[in-house]
Amino acid sequence: MDLNFRSDNESPAAAEILAALSAANQGYVWSYAEDDWSNRLDSAFSELFGTDVAVLPVSTGTAANSIALSCLAPAWGSVYCHTGAHIVQDEGGAPEFFGHGIRLVGVVGEQGKLQADPLRRSIASNGGHGVHSYLPSALSLTQSTEAGTIYQPAEVAELCGAAAEFGLPVHMDGARFANAIAALGCSPGESTWQAGVRMLSFGASKNGCFAAEALLMFGDSALMDHAERMRKRSGHLLSKMRFVSAQLLAYIEDGLWLRLAGHANAQAARFAAAIEQHPKASLEFPVEANEVFVRWSKAGFEQLEAAGVQFLIWPGHDDMARFVFSHCGSAEGTERLCEIVAGI
Amino acid sequence: MDLNFRSDNESPAAAEILAALSAANQGYVWSYAEDDWSNRLDSAFSELFGTDVAVLPVSTGTAANSIALSCLAPAWGSVYCHTGAHIVQDEGGAPEFFGHGIRLVGVVGEQGKLQADPLRRSIASNGGHGVHSYLPSALSLTQSTEAGTIYQPAEVAELCGAAAEFGLPVHMDGARFANAIAALGCSPGESTWQAGVRMLSFGASKNGCFAAEALLMFGDSALMDHAERMRKRSGHLLSKMRFVSAQLLAYIEDGLWLRLAGHANAQAARFAAAIEQHPKASLEFPVEANEVFVRWSKAGFEQLEAAGVQFLIWPGHDDMARFVFSHCGSAEGTERLCEIVAGI
Amino acid sequence: MDLNFRSDNESPAAAEILAALSAANQGYVWSYAEDDWSNRLDSAFSELFGTDVAVLPVSTGTAANSIALSCLAPAWGSVYCHTGAHIVQDEGGAPEFFGHGIRLVGVVGEQGKLQADPLRRSIASNGGHGVHSYLPSALSLTQSTEAGTIYQPAEVAELCGAAAEFGLPVHMDGARFANAIAALGCSPGESTWQAGVRMLSFGASKNGCFAAEALLMFGDSALMDHAERMRKRSGHLLSKMRFVSAQLLAYIEDGLWLRLAGHANAQAARFAAAIEQHPKASLEFPVEANEVFVRWSKAGFEQLEAAGVQFLIWPGHDDMARFVFSHCGSAEGTERLCEIVAGI
Amino acid sequence: MDLNFRSDNESPAAAEILAALSAANQGYVWSYAEDDWSNRLDSAFSELFGTDVAVLPVSTGTAANSIALSCLAPAWGSVYCHTGAHIVQDEGGAPEFFGHGIRLVGVVGEQGKLQADPLRRSIASNGGHGVHSYLPSALSLTQSTEAGTIYQPAEVAELCGAAAEFGLPVHMDGARFANAIAALGCSPGESTWQAGVRMLSFGASKNGCFAAEALLMFGDSALMDHAERMRKRSGHLLSKMRFVSAQLLAYIEDGLWLRLAGHANAQAARFAAAIEQHPKASLEFPVEANEVFVRWSKAGFEQLEAAGVQFLIWPGHDDMARFVFSHCGSAEGTERLCEIVAGI
Repeated sequence: MDLNFRSDNESPAAAEILAALSAANQGYVWSYAEDDWSNRLDSAFSELFGTDVAVLPVSTGTAANSIALSCLAPAWGSVYCHTGAHIVQDEGGAPEFFGHGIRLVGVVGEQGKLQADPLRRSIASNGGHGVHSYLPSALSLTQSTEAGTIYQPAEVAELCGAAAEFGLPVHMDGARFANAIAALGCSPGESTWQAGVRMLSFGASKNGCFAAEALLMFGDSALMDHAERMRKRSGHLLSKMRFVSAQLLAYIEDGLWLRLAGHANAQAARFAAAIEQHPKASLEFPVEANEVFVRWSKAGFEQLEAAGVQFLIWPGHDDMARFVFSHCGSAEGTERLCEIVAGI
Repeated sequence: MDLNFRSDNESPAAAEILAALSAANQGYVWSYAEDDWSNRLDSAFSELFGTDVAVLPVSTGTAANSIALSCLAPAWGSVYCHTGAHIVQDEGGAPEFFGHGIRLVGVVGEQGKLQADPLRRSIASNGGHGVHSYLPSALSLTQSTEAGTIYQPAEVAELCGAAAEFGLPVHMDGARFANAIAALGCSPGESTWQAGVRMLSFGASKNGCFAAEALLMFGDSALMDHAERMRKRSGHLLSKMRFVSAQLLAYIEDGLWLRLAGHANAQAARFAAAIEQHPKASLEFPVEANEVFVRWSKAGFEQLEAAGVQFLIWPGHDDMARFVFSHCGSAEGTERLCEIVAGI
Repeated sequence: MDLNFRSDNESPAAAEILAALSAANQGYVWSYAEDDWSNRLDSAFSELFGTDVAVLPVSTGTAANSIALSCLAPAWGSVYCHTGAHIVQDEGGAPEFFGHGIRLVGVVGEQGKLQADPLRRSIASNGGHGVHSYLPSALSLTQSTEAGTIYQPAEVAELCGAAAEFGLPVHMDGARFANAIAALGCSPGESTWQAGVRMLSFGASKNGCFAAEALLMFGDSALMDHAERMRKRSGHLLSKMRFVSAQLLAYIEDGLWLRLAGHANAQAARFAAAIEQHPKASLEFPVEANEVFVRWSKAGFEQLEAAGVQFLIWPGHDDMARFVFSHCGSAEGTERLCEIVAGI
Repeated sequence: MDLNFRSDNESPAAAEILAALSAANQGYVWSYAEDDWSNRLDSAFSELFGTDVAVLPVSTGTAANSIALSCLAPAWGSVYCHTGAHIVQDEGGAPEFFGHGIRLVGVVGEQGKLQADPLRRSIASNGGHGVHSYLPSALSLTQSTEAGTIYQPAEVAELCGAAAEFGLPVHMDGARFANAIAALGCSPGESTWQAGVRMLSFGASKNGCFAAEALLMFGDSALMDHAERMRKRSGHLLSKMRFVSAQLLAYIEDGLWLRLAGHANAQAARFAAAIEQHPKASLEFPVEANEVFVRWSKAGFEQLEAAGVQFLIWPGHDDMARFVFSHCGSAEGTERLCEIVAGI
């Protein structure tokens, strides 16, 4: 029994995705995203989101995020985000590279979430010195957040509203967007464009695909030409793009993406309940999606590791760890994990 | 019967590659290229090339080429290549982007091939004006070339020697490297590092993979840290890299890559023979790999298209066309093509 | 007697310019181009050119050129220019740096001048492959040219018209713009905005200033915000900008710039006449401004050097040399040069 | 009487500097920093600093800082500095532009000064995630600081030592270096290379020059080629560089720079004493160089302005203001300022 809760990035692809890839592997088709699968993306995502959506398929979330930000901020522009955001902590400078020198400005917030007033203050305190300052240019939210929490649609709307006061469009990093929507139970449109989000990095790789992500533009797609140029010159226009697009289509067909994410979320909830009942361990953040951050003693974590459980001791801490539940983790594995925890 | 000879980029993946992908789709493995498949790449390619090889898997040839050139040239450096090279004609400025403003300098050469003396003259006539000029920094060769021709190992060695006179290291764009090696019959090492090539973009996507390419460094791998940083910040470090690496391993296992390429080459040779026998059509370049450039009348090409054959009228010409033969084109299809041609 | 004809870059500033600098050196004034001198630039240049002009003072021509091109071309855009243009030959990659990876495309032309049809063909043969190609984005002309020749207003208009057919705006590198206008005898507006030029790098350093150049935008100044941001982030917004602006104002006041350039042109014409009378030396290009390119024997040039004359043997040639006449070269010096030449 | 204390950037050049410029304005000299003035810089600064110094003259501090950082950090590198540092607050993204996407990491510190332990913690908490993180690459100190305070040589040494523990070289932004050295009374070498500083942006524009700054490399000058390439491609290689170099030589000759700075410091000290005696105003930071930050009521500042005094209300505050004293402010003006303050 596999007791790996280190990262959903370590999971294999779902059977449905492999089947779709196999089905798409027939005959000659146009290259460079002019195939039938790629051509169907706009309509499929438009239907899913209930509005006109322009879709740019790519193979990594870093590419989707970085291309999006390069569309929204000029080289002398700054992008506001949470201090713990993936774009600022984990992408090796890709946003700055694609953006030709943009600056990411981290804003502190509890439980991995930005709040409107600190965001307003941060924007207001920057950019007031003309060309000497960076020009505040965009806001980037992560949904679900890096802390495993979720923005309610009203919270997204409030943040988009605060950004709009300064003329800033909003990007959402949806590396774990499926987990958020599965948890919220709302429509994907409700927590994105209806709340004011202009571009979404729609993630699929973590939740059942091999390597499939998409940059979505809601409504106005005037920036798609910019995005396509950046995709090409960053080497992300796959010649055989059908294989990415086929994954994406299968992923959103018949609600597969939400079933997979819902399963992962349920496992996380089960584990969270076990932690809450434990006399010494505790939850660092509310568990709302598929990630669980646990505060425990170093000894506790060591015993857990000794029992064969794999998870991530949080860098720089020895009393906090992250457990991520994936689309393919078995319920038995989760139960076993809970038993082991209870026994320590 | 599929009569598509437009591009090998339009072909599906080989059955063996799909099988390898499926086999790799089991259980949790380390993410970000720390999985077992990725870890085996260095030794597998070292064995294949007969020397120490450091391997950086990526998903597109443009990424491999651009990362390689960013390693070899500073931002103020120029890279010499054939005027028709893919890097200068077809990559949308990716080398310049990854290289932070490097310049590509095209050198004219017959049949898609560079020759040593014109190369020497071009290098010598540039870069002589200190900081006012670009610094000549690298040479990039394409093997097989964009004209479907092949450099003999001695020719590669001569060009590497000419470059070395100016201190320039050599990169090889091997988008169709398999076709070249299958045709040459030499070892892969003989036409690369033994001839003086320092880095190779080892292509696999066109010849049977979904999306699998690799940047290879021969011998000294001191620049691999640079390459890994660039891969990350260009968004090319896939979280589930096992799927790229598994393709690459299957591709070079038991000579699959050469069998696939040999088949494509044989089809091209068959078609070339048919063209040579045709009273009005002729070959634009020697046919040495899997591409055939045909000179014919506009009317001839139109009749061919009317017969259901798909191929590429060369941009800016109406009397030249390119036919590319892929790993999966059937011999029957080739015969049918030859019959149609003969009948016009 | 100073017999230096190597470059007008080696000349000192004119007395009037030094006086203006000295006069501006009084008391405190606003920094960062908000001083009275800088504030007067727009109106002074608007009057000079007979239309609304927005002026961005900088200290080098490379900065002016590179900022201009960064305004006109996106990072994936190409800029067409003569193969011998300063921007492509002598600026060390500055246009590519400021432009985040733009490409300069050289077009061949006699006597340092572009012609409309080869330009059309070059643009048409590029950029036809969507995102795979660079996007043709701008044309850059040099006036007077790097060969010392001049575009007539009608020629400028014809080239601007050809560029406009492809939607390309036109930049003019006017490092020696004064020499051109002094020779043409037309108004500065006639050979720029009236002929279709959108931006001009107005040079002054070579012709009597210390370090003073300006980027001029004619009519629509919507791109000035872009230019100001680029000036700041390239380190070209001097805190004490009054000293650049004061030079520029003095330079164009009362026709100083044209008097200085006219003097230089006259010296060049005198020397050209001497060359034409020489039995063995000849002019390489028509002499229309302040540069004279001479074709002569190696021995001839060596004797000239031995006589104490300083000039530039053209790189890569031993039978061609360039002589540049500056605003401050004495007529006696020119006569002495002519005598020496005649005596060889 | 001029009561302008807004910024030393608003001051004119010293008479000695204007005289030097005038003296250098004679005859033809080699262009592009190959003139005699430029050639003397290395030896003049080596003598001043008591070690081998390689000097790169430029015209702005932003250029000097940004070129220096581009030498010390790769594109994926981070540079640590104080949160209030000029490079991060006031240079419009120039360091990020010259550095092709480097990241500046601000570290909090009292009175505008960094301290070793917070610096260590900041470095240690970053860059631990391989290619996913920026690579900690350099430290940048400002001397005198943006708060008008000064690092003692031992403090510089301690910070350089902390940086060295992580392998980080140190850059010093010396826009007001003269004010620091005049106040410290130590040799310029003692607070720079002897304390571990590798590169210094030696400022002169604020303290009596027109536009003259220099990037100084101590000891090893292997990175000078990088710096020269960056200077050229950023448009900072003036054709008539003699005018910058002549300013620099005159500035350090016979201690002019320290006399000018000492005067400015003395005025600041006089004003600081007046503030300390005031019942309602107070000093925000220790006054150690030529800048005075005053905490006072809004009404107090308004009365001061009404009395004709010019100074800078600190952005975002209405109860703090900055007063900068320059090389040319008269002692009478300072006395008048003190009287006005005392009368409010």
